[in-house]
Amino acid sequence: MAKIKATNITWHEGHVGRAEREALLGQKGATVWFTGLSGSGKSTIAFTVEHALVQRKHLAYVLDGDNIRHGLNKNLGFSAEDREENIRRIGEVAKLFADAGLITLTSFISPYARDRDQVRRLHEQAALPFIEVFVNTPIGVCEQRDPKGLYKKARAALAQGKGMGFTGVDDPYEAPPKPEIAISAEKITPQEAAAVVIEYLESRGIVPALQG
Amino acid sequence: MAKIKATNITWHEGHVGRAEREALLGQKGATVWFTGLSGSGKSTIAFTVEHALVQRKHLAYVLDGDNIRHGLNKNLGFSAEDREENIRRIGEVAKLFADAGLITLTSFISPYARDRDQVRRLHEQAALPFIEVFVNTPIGVCEQRDPKGLYKKARAALAQGKGMGFTGVDDPYEAPPKPEIAISAEKITPQEAAAVVIEYLESRGIVPALQG
Repeated sequence: MAKIKATNITWHEGHVGRAEREALLGQKGATVWFTGLSGSGKSTIAFTVEHALVQRKHLAYVLDGDNIRHGLNKNLGFSAEDREENIRRIGEVAKLFADAGLITLTSFISPYARDRDQVRRLHEQAALPFIEVFVNTPIGVCEQRDPKGLYKKARAALAQGKGMGFTGVDDPYEAPPKPEIAISAEKITPQEAAAVVIEYLESRGIVPALQG
Repeated sequence: MAKIKATNITWHEGHVGRAEREALLGQKGATVWFTGLSGSGKSTIAFTVEHALVQRKHLAYVLDGDNIRHGLNKNLGFSAEDREENIRRIGEVAKLFADAGLITLTSFISPYARDRDQVRRLHEQAALPFIEVFVNTPIGVCEQRDPKGLYKKARAALAQGKGMGFTGVDDPYEAPPKPEIAISAEKITPQEAAAVVIEYLESRGIVPALQG
């Protein structure tokens, strides 16, 4: 133990403060919560925002089905109870990420207003920004796109009397009444939608505006 | 929509790569998993490492009972099943943090080798460093410290025939056979222990060594 260069390390008993991490990163921690139907374009917009922020040297991270459903929430199914727990856990993880100073972008259908509102309250109680982005694409457009063939599957199941509880087909989507941002995603490009989100982040002081 | 400055935003369909975020942060994402008895000094060392890394402009974050048990895992108790799920979820969150480029320090007793090994495998499968730090303080020392009065409570419960399943009293602690770092925490100060951890992170190239 003779060679330890520990003289400049100070003993601490508690967490590093949020402000200290935010100063280090040059941004504020925040959760940007995308909600909308399957096929609405949530993920494309979220990834576009993520890449644009990282290009601007900001730390952003997308939580989506890929990294959540196969990991943290792999022991959850699609019952009403499990769907609620799914969103609750994602909300708690987003809050931890935001507390760590990251701009977290979540991309989940999250159809129920009550579940989203609980995540909002969780953030508000911790004085962390929660930005709800409603990706408002008409169901006809989503169903025509059907990138994963899920609508087709849900309609077929329904026709056979075996409902899947698929959002927009045989389970409701509750549109946010007062989202921070609403995007008519069939009228603008993902780049334009991403720019709207980033300008909003600038307006809230979460990332500084670009100069010039 | 006329004023959108979106010309420099490129449309992306997938996650930002880990390497890109690591380049931005000047560090590698990793999980430093502290394990040891209640009162062994895990949290003090973890917080000391966190502060030292942030002082060196690195992004580090402690996951501990404070921010996990009251949040993500508030619906878990202390049954064998719930303890396993507790560690599983923490492991998944640590992995997400590491994937986002952070150095995550977890401070949980995590008494069972099997649960810790599952978290290790989870990281290895994702090519993320998992560094197990065994905070090896004799139970006599931990019980004498008893900072939260938990040993006293556990002994009293046991004397009344109402076992709590408290690690070290009436539930086993399985010491890691091959931890990356073992700390005899009653023989060195938290600063010295933190320095050992940071030197290890340097040796693995997770953070660059200080110059001079």
